[in-house]
Amino acid sequence: MQALSAYHTVFQNYLTENDFSYEPKELYEPVNYILGIGGKRLRPLLALMGCELFSKNINRALPIAMAVEVFHNFTLLHDDIMDDAPLRRGKPTVHVKYNINTGILSGDVMLILAYHFLQSTEGSVTMTHKLWAIFNKMAREVCDGQQMDMNFESRNDVTLSEYIKMIELKTSVLIAAAFEMGAVAGGASLKQAAPLYEFGKNVGIAFQIQDDLLDTFGDPATFGKKVGGDIVQNKKTFLVLKTFELANSAQKTALTILMATPTHDELAKITAVRTIFEALNVQQHAERAMDDYLQLAFAALDETTLSGAKKTYLKEWANELNMRRK
Amino acid sequence: MQALSAYHTVFQNYLTENDFSYEPKELYEPVNYILGIGGKRLRPLLALMGCELFSKNINRALPIAMAVEVFHNFTLLHDDIMDDAPLRRGKPTVHVKYNINTGILSGDVMLILAYHFLQSTEGSVTMTHKLWAIFNKMAREVCDGQQMDMNFESRNDVTLSEYIKMIELKTSVLIAAAFEMGAVAGGASLKQAAPLYEFGKNVGIAFQIQDDLLDTFGDPATFGKKVGGDIVQNKKTFLVLKTFELANSAQKTALTILMATPTHDELAKITAVRTIFEALNVQQHAERAMDDYLQLAFAALDETTLSGAKKTYLKEWANELNMRRK
Repeated sequence: MQALSAYHTVFQNYLTENDFSYEPKELYEPVNYILGIGGKRLRPLLALMGCELFSKNINRALPIAMAVEVFHNFTLLHDDIMDDAPLRRGKPTVHVKYNINTGILSGDVMLILAYHFLQSTEGSVTMTHKLWAIFNKMAREVCDGQQMDMNFESRNDVTLSEYIKMIELKTSVLIAAAFEMGAVAGGASLKQAAPLYEFGKNVGIAFQIQDDLLDTFGDPATFGKKVGGDIVQNKKTFLVLKTFELANSAQKTALTILMATPTHDELAKITAVRTIFEALNVQQHAERAMDDYLQLAFAALDETTLSGAKKTYLKEWANELNMRRK
Repeated sequence: MQALSAYHTVFQNYLTENDFSYEPKELYEPVNYILGIGGKRLRPLLALMGCELFSKNINRALPIAMAVEVFHNFTLLHDDIMDDAPLRRGKPTVHVKYNINTGILSGDVMLILAYHFLQSTEGSVTMTHKLWAIFNKMAREVCDGQQMDMNFESRNDVTLSEYIKMIELKTSVLIAAAFEMGAVAGGASLKQAAPLYEFGKNVGIAFQIQDDLLDTFGDPATFGKKVGGDIVQNKKTFLVLKTFELANSAQKTALTILMATPTHDELAKITAVRTIFEALNVQQHAERAMDDYLQLAFAALDETTLSGAKKTYLKEWANELNMRRK
C-alpha cells in the first residue's frame, strides 16, 4: 500500500488530464470550477486504495475514482442550491457564481459524466456491470438520504436512529461504494468486496459524527468552517438528538426554546447550547459512538482474507481520518 | 408489427406495475405524479417497436421503454424549473405543485431510476453494456442541447443550422436512442441498429419542426396548448430563424421590434408576426424541411435489411406522426 499523498497525486494528475473543456462552455465550465476548488478527495482515494488491496495496478480504478468524485460534487452542487448556500470550500457556490439554472443543468450533466467514467473502466463487461449495479444502488440511496435530511428540518420528533440512517444514506454509502468498486476493479469478487463496503460504511458514519463534533467543539484555528455553524442553523445533529435523549425536562425546554428563537447574538446562542451539551457529556457520547462504528468497521475488515499488514494499514487510516488514537 | 394502441397498452400496464410507491414518499410521489399526467409515450413506443423489428418478445424492451420515459420526464421536470413553467400537460408543474427543491431532487432520482431500469434489461451483460453506452451518450447530448437552447435566449445571431443542431440534441437523440436501444434489446447488432438511430433522429427533427409549425399555425381546437405561445415568448423557432434568412431589411426590422417590445396585446402581436411569416411563406419552407428530414429518415431505413412490410409500417408511422400524407 502507498502513502496517502501518492494516491492523491495520481488522482490529481488524472483529474488534470480529464478536464472538462467541452462545448457548450456554459455547461462544462461550472463542472471544472467545482472540481477545481479542492476538497479532500476522500472518495477517489478510497477507490484507489480498494483497488490496490487486490491489484498492483491502481490505474484500473482511476475512472471509478473520477466517477465517485464527480458524483460527490454533483450532490454538493445540487444540495447547495437546495440549501441556498453561498460558499463551498470558501469559494462562491456554483449557483451564486453563475445562476440557479446553470447549477441545475451542470449538476445533471455531472451525474451523467459519473456514469460515463464508470463505464470506461477497463475490464470485462461482467465487471463493469457489477460496478454499474453498485453505483445505481448507491446513487439512489444518496437521494433518499438527502430527502430524509430535508424532511428532518420540519420535524420535531427525529430519533437518533433515524439520524444515523440518514447519514448512512446521505454520506456513508458513497464512501462504502467507492471502496467496494475500487476493490472490484482490482479483481475482488463481490463476496470479497462486501466486507469492504461494510468497513467503508461504518468509517463513514463515524466520520459524519466527527463532523458534527468538530462543528461545535472543533478548534477554530484548524476547522476550516465557522465553529458553531450547526447550532446557529438549528441543525438536528447527533449532539442535539443525543441531548434530547438524555436531557431532563428543563434542559429539553431550554434547548427547544434556543432552537426555535431567532437571535442576532449568535455567540450567546452557541455558548448556551454548548453549555447544555456539556452538562450531559454529549461530546463523550459522540466519541463513544464514533468508536463503536469504528469497531464495526474493523470487525468487517477482520472477516476478509486480507493480509495483516493491509488490515493494519486500513485501521490506521480509519483512525487517523477520525482522529482516534486507540 | 402491432397497432400503436397495443404498444401503448403494454407500456401503460408496465408503468402501473412499476409505480414508485417508495419511501421517502416526498421524493417519489412527484415521480408518480409527473409520470401519471400522461403524454404521448412516444419514446417507450419506439423502444417497443424497435425491439419487435428483431424479436417477437417485445417485453424484453419494457425496461428500456421505462428508462427512456423516466429520463424524458426527468428532463421535463428540470426544464420546467429552469423555464419557471407553471403548467405541464395542463396540470401544475412539479416545482409549482410541490416546491423547487423537490423538483430538483425528484428529477435527480428519476435520472438514476432511468439507469436502474436500463440495467435491469434481460439479456447478456454485453448487450446491456451496449445499451449503457448508447444511453450515456444520449443523456449527455440532451444536456448539451438544453444548454444551447438556453444560450440562444440571449443571442441575436442564432442561425438555422445551429437551431437544427440544438433540436437534434435536445429532442431527437432521445427518440433515436429509444428506437436503437429497443432494436438492440430485440437482438440487433450495433451495425443493424445504427440506421434505425438515423431514422429516429431525422423523424425527431421533423417532429420538432412540426411542433414549431403547430404552435403558430395549429388548430386551436386540437393543438392542446395555446396557439401563438412561441410568438408571445419570443422563441427563436424554425419559423423565426427562417424568416431572418429570407426577410428584406424592413421585415427584419419589423420582426426584431415585435420580438423586443413588451406588449399586453398578445393577439395583436401574434397576428403581426404571423403576417410576416405568411408574406415569406415560412410555413411552406418549414413543411419542406420536414419532408426533407423524413426523406433522410426513409433513406436510412432503406439501408437496413428489414422486410418491405416493416419498412412500410415505419414509414407510415413516421408520416402519421408528422401528419404527412405523401
